[in-house]
Amino acid sequence: MAGTSPELVPDPAEIRCVRDVEALAGQALPASVADFVAGGSDAETSLAANRAALDSVFVEPRVLRAAGDVRTDTRLLGRDCAQPVAIAPLAYHRLVHPDGELATARAARAAGIPFTVSTLSSVPIEDVVAEGGDVWFQLYWPRDRAATFELVRRAERAGCVGLVLTVDVPWMGRRLRDVRNEFALPAGVGAAHFAGATAAEVAGSGASALATHTAQAFEPALTWDDLAELRRRCELPLVVKGILAPEDAERAAGLGADAIVVSNHGGRQLDGAVPPVHRVAAVRAAVAERCQVLLDSGIRGGLDVLRALALGADGVLLGRPTLWGLACGGQAGLDRVLALLAQELRDALGLAGCRTPGEARQLRTVLGAERGDR
Amino acid sequence: MAGTSPELVPDPAEIRCVRDVEALAGQALPASVADFVAGGSDAETSLAANRAALDSVFVEPRVLRAAGDVRTDTRLLGRDCAQPVAIAPLAYHRLVHPDGELATARAARAAGIPFTVSTLSSVPIEDVVAEGGDVWFQLYWPRDRAATFELVRRAERAGCVGLVLTVDVPWMGRRLRDVRNEFALPAGVGAAHFAGATAAEVAGSGASALATHTAQAFEPALTWDDLAELRRRCELPLVVKGILAPEDAERAAGLGADAIVVSNHGGRQLDGAVPPVHRVAAVRAAVAERCQVLLDSGIRGGLDVLRALALGADGVLLGRPTLWGLACGGQAGLDRVLALLAQELRDALGLAGCRTPGEARQLRTVLGAERGDR
Amino acid sequence: MAGTSPELVPDPAEIRCVRDVEALAGQALPASVADFVAGGSDAETSLAANRAALDSVFVEPRVLRAAGDVRTDTRLLGRDCAQPVAIAPLAYHRLVHPDGELATARAARAAGIPFTVSTLSSVPIEDVVAEGGDVWFQLYWPRDRAATFELVRRAERAGCVGLVLTVDVPWMGRRLRDVRNEFALPAGVGAAHFAGATAAEVAGSGASALATHTAQAFEPALTWDDLAELRRRCELPLVVKGILAPEDAERAAGLGADAIVVSNHGGRQLDGAVPPVHRVAAVRAAVAERCQVLLDSGIRGGLDVLRALALGADGVLLGRPTLWGLACGGQAGLDRVLALLAQELRDALGLAGCRTPGEARQLRTVLGAERGDR
Amino acid sequence: MAGTSPELVPDPAEIRCVRDVEALAGQALPASVADFVAGGSDAETSLAANRAALDSVFVEPRVLRAAGDVRTDTRLLGRDCAQPVAIAPLAYHRLVHPDGELATARAARAAGIPFTVSTLSSVPIEDVVAEGGDVWFQLYWPRDRAATFELVRRAERAGCVGLVLTVDVPWMGRRLRDVRNEFALPAGVGAAHFAGATAAEVAGSGASALATHTAQAFEPALTWDDLAELRRRCELPLVVKGILAPEDAERAAGLGADAIVVSNHGGRQLDGAVPPVHRVAAVRAAVAERCQVLLDSGIRGGLDVLRALALGADGVLLGRPTLWGLACGGQAGLDRVLALLAQELRDALGLAGCRTPGEARQLRTVLGAERGDR
Repeated sequence: MAGTSPELVPDPAEIRCVRDVEALAGQALPASVADFVAGGSDAETSLAANRAALDSVFVEPRVLRAAGDVRTDTRLLGRDCAQPVAIAPLAYHRLVHPDGELATARAARAAGIPFTVSTLSSVPIEDVVAEGGDVWFQLYWPRDRAATFELVRRAERAGCVGLVLTVDVPWMGRRLRDVRNEFALPAGVGAAHFAGATAAEVAGSGASALATHTAQAFEPALTWDDLAELRRRCELPLVVKGILAPEDAERAAGLGADAIVVSNHGGRQLDGAVPPVHRVAAVRAAVAERCQVLLDSGIRGGLDVLRALALGADGVLLGRPTLWGLACGGQAGLDRVLALLAQELRDALGLAGCRTPGEARQLRTVLGAERGDR
Repeated sequence: MAGTSPELVPDPAEIRCVRDVEALAGQALPASVADFVAGGSDAETSLAANRAALDSVFVEPRVLRAAGDVRTDTRLLGRDCAQPVAIAPLAYHRLVHPDGELATARAARAAGIPFTVSTLSSVPIEDVVAEGGDVWFQLYWPRDRAATFELVRRAERAGCVGLVLTVDVPWMGRRLRDVRNEFALPAGVGAAHFAGATAAEVAGSGASALATHTAQAFEPALTWDDLAELRRRCELPLVVKGILAPEDAERAAGLGADAIVVSNHGGRQLDGAVPPVHRVAAVRAAVAERCQVLLDSGIRGGLDVLRALALGADGVLLGRPTLWGLACGGQAGLDRVLALLAQELRDALGLAGCRTPGEARQLRTVLGAERGDR
Repeated sequence: MAGTSPELVPDPAEIRCVRDVEALAGQALPASVADFVAGGSDAETSLAANRAALDSVFVEPRVLRAAGDVRTDTRLLGRDCAQPVAIAPLAYHRLVHPDGELATARAARAAGIPFTVSTLSSVPIEDVVAEGGDVWFQLYWPRDRAATFELVRRAERAGCVGLVLTVDVPWMGRRLRDVRNEFALPAGVGAAHFAGATAAEVAGSGASALATHTAQAFEPALTWDDLAELRRRCELPLVVKGILAPEDAERAAGLGADAIVVSNHGGRQLDGAVPPVHRVAAVRAAVAERCQVLLDSGIRGGLDVLRALALGADGVLLGRPTLWGLACGGQAGLDRVLALLAQELRDALGLAGCRTPGEARQLRTVLGAERGDR
Repeated sequence: MAGTSPELVPDPAEIRCVRDVEALAGQALPASVADFVAGGSDAETSLAANRAALDSVFVEPRVLRAAGDVRTDTRLLGRDCAQPVAIAPLAYHRLVHPDGELATARAARAAGIPFTVSTLSSVPIEDVVAEGGDVWFQLYWPRDRAATFELVRRAERAGCVGLVLTVDVPWMGRRLRDVRNEFALPAGVGAAHFAGATAAEVAGSGASALATHTAQAFEPALTWDDLAELRRRCELPLVVKGILAPEDAERAAGLGADAIVVSNHGGRQLDGAVPPVHRVAAVRAAVAERCQVLLDSGIRGGLDVLRALALGADGVLLGRPTLWGLACGGQAGLDRVLALLAQELRDALGLAGCRTPGEARQLRTVLGAERGDR
């Protein structure tokens, strides 16, 4: 990690709330890596809208319901977890810390929440699972169909307890920060699951090397038939990530998905895609309780988890703050982020009069101005 | 009050409107005390939203109704008062002026409005009541149940004319300004009603000492049964403070509450809680005239009182401006604030064509953009 | 006009649109006078909201209707005028130019529009009428009832062709700029219709001398009976100015008003009063065609006139830009403002596909975000 | 092009997205020319609102529909084109580059999209058509009726494949930037289709020379009968440009228009005109599939094309970015803009789950706050 020196590693004790970690990580990371993590596609309209939409959700708390005795634990994909939160799939954790996905796995295990390992992990899935804790495997579908099912079997054999199929990436969105930076993977960071050409090797001028690699490696034309086949051939609980249309959610549930992730990919795929906050209630209405509903894109603290629950979700995925936490000293930084998240969620649940995440699903929400009354 | 010097005490004559007092107090107070008074919880979303919501309420004035002859007096909890305003419960007035709650009591008496003394008063309730005027006692429910009813009896014996049960504080909201400041009570300021460990004594690193003390001292798991028991065992008119859900308001009224305070605790408890401005009409519809409805959180002048009345409230609680007034020279500063509030309210009522606060409840309101058309 | 020197008089040719005149006048006027003209009451919420509301009105133009042949003339109070615009009543024109209301009268006559002379004119009504053109007289109702009807008769005798009763000023709104400036009339400027104490003579510390004078001189408790009596005793067409509630408009029409001015007094009376833009359609629906409907508060160019017409008004009053024009060299400056207004209105009508102001009343409007999509 | 030197010509490779080109062109162009291109009329309310309205349109993408195989080609006016985009009519391309409309024609041909040549072209239509590609001719209707139909026949003879009648310019909107700049055509740039007085020759003080010329040359009072006659006498597919009212769209379709351009002329005609984004769905509903519907005003990239399609349009016109592209080195700059537009559109279609522009018309849209959630 050229450009970072030990002096710049932030003290995790300086992090007083989950939001704090973005600025601290920004000091620790090389600018182009910070951009890669923080950026969105095109004009970053959806990136900004995701936060504005969350901030616009106001909750109507209840009182006198003995909420002092708060529990944050719940069940995701049929297994206990300490918070209604899973670590979102994120490529190349070693970009932000040498321990990479190993540190993430340790922090997630310590926090008692599932960790979704990306197809583009910089550490092999077997090594990650060996750290213990619940691991889900995220699947980008290689153009080589045999390789796809080989990857799935590899995840099963490694001991993963969930499979997450990403359906909103026929190719990578055009992330202009990376294009302007001509961003490529630094030496020593690569896709551990791919023996062949890595992103670093296809870097070229005027482009994001990662986008080029993604376009070459993965299938851009997935169909509902592919999902059905995957469902038949995969024994793990199946999550479909990247759905915004209620009709698509219903179809995925009908094909046997165990969970839907309502997401616009953190504003990194279709710029102008509606923030998931505005679709989660409609998706819930479409699938009822046939599958779980998770919200992803913009979560930055415990209040956001409460908002997601109140809107009808079973839980959330935590994306960028994971990498920002790792950037603050590795596992110690992420430990701090996940501990604060738990504390903030317990706080938000209790102050809203809820003893469990499930009770939060009964809260009424009031939509403020799109700018969130700020 | 280390950090303040006499030269910095503002001249009350410089205060031309209630809003002016915030900036003047900011000059007179140590930064950490100013933060403690002004701050909200977490991202201060609700703190900002409270003002934005008030600013978004536009009133439709009426004309030719002989409104020149304006009276601002009304009745709260069955007793006359000069304005539809009571001083909100606020902890530790001695933080901002050595005279503390005694000065507040004198100013409230002079202005003819009730003063709510906090459980966390820095002056004993008996001394406050001795200053004359209507005093209400605010109750945080100690974990020691016997101590709770002892406190209630103490308030009754002292001569209080109302009891205000706060129901939105299972524990203190996470106020990041105080956390970053590691805020603790200065020497000489403490909770007058508690002989044991005070907040000052539990101050620790990386935390708000007051939050720690609150968590240790008070019951986090109150229920509707507790409210019912309090109603049976307390002879004073009973106010339930911190309700936003109409269903909760209805239940409190059904249990015999004499008034409801629609409040998100000035944005200091659940961040993201809906501004009370957006709930007061629904609360009024739920309770009809079975109990009084007061609005609290964000009131900064006579126009805000008019807005509250037009939305359906019987009156408001005045919070932070009370402490800001005290910070400007003690009673003289607060006298000025309350006199300006009366003048602004008379002005607003008359210009809206209303001769009494009651007539203002008939005004039509128009909601501007959430940012209040500004 | 201490503080202005001839060098600072702007060249009217520098004024390229009506809006330009505000900044130019700001350079020419003493700060306290500029504040008196530009300011609103209290937090200036309504002042800002008036513009935001106008900016939020988008017009749906029509095409291929031979609109090249545009006429801006119409009829107000039964008489021809060159634009659907009258000069609003404004106190003390001599504050901004020595020629005062005489210059205004000449410019209004040249532009072919009515000029409303204020009760607080700095030039006697007879001298103003002698300049020619249609003059309306604005009535503040003196506490001395006999003086009221004497003023009305004086206006009739002088040759006024309309009487405008202001009903939104039981007393002056609290304009904090004037309070902070301790604003009083300079020597040589006074209320020409009052022989006794003038505003200059009652100036005091910490207050606006004009507000004090208004409170002393005028009746704060007018009623509908007063309006009825005025209607019986006044032979001129009668305009009721300062109505926002449709019910009040209907009642005024029922009592024989020839026109209603939907206005929040330019944000100078009740702060927080709804912008008239949001009430004009409801007022029109309430009075149908029983009387004319004029809009006042925030008009800053021909587009605003078009917006008012499209919302259902018959015309507008032009307030502050009148004084700003006068401040730019007297009649020459105001001539420029009124010529630009005519040009802008012709432009707006034609580009909207309307040949007359009457056709503009058929346009559809679309309300953008309250901030006017800007 | 006095004021530009070769050093300032931007490198097209620096353009990473269509939006980039505005700032780059701003560096290359003389300020008054940049103002002429970028400016809107009056307060530029509609200019700003056009972007805000587009930014407020959020799209609900679909998934698993094999969208990797994206095609952007479609049919406009019955002919194939590579994108659902035509170059909007824009006057005097030689203002921004010496090659003028010839360079535009080459770039449009290379990109496979139609180019609309303005009546006020700085290059004769015959020379433009000779460059190949589909050319449409835009008609401003001269006051001399015979000259009008002579122009139409000239366009037909030259080989144009579409005629675009502009109906929102009875005269030019008042563009204050040009007025303040006293903008006139530089020597060597003129209206190639007019032998007589050119705009340059009528330049005067305090005015836009182009506005003066337009007012003198063109018919300000067109009617529906004129459109009907044009339809009878013109054999080309006919486009009516500048409609916002659904009733007008319906009437145009009824008279045989092959396409409607929903447009407020880029905010350059009636300031305060509703953004076309807010009218395109109503226009589509009014005309159903009887004619094509194009959207113009504010398009700045592929996402905006997707938004237009999702709102119900068949395509868009690309205005200012055309001239900004030309300003960046002539054809090479515009080539880059059009290539990026194609890339952005393919990206947006695919990421939204659409294989063709036609499929995008089935997408659901969600309107964010008028500020577009930004």
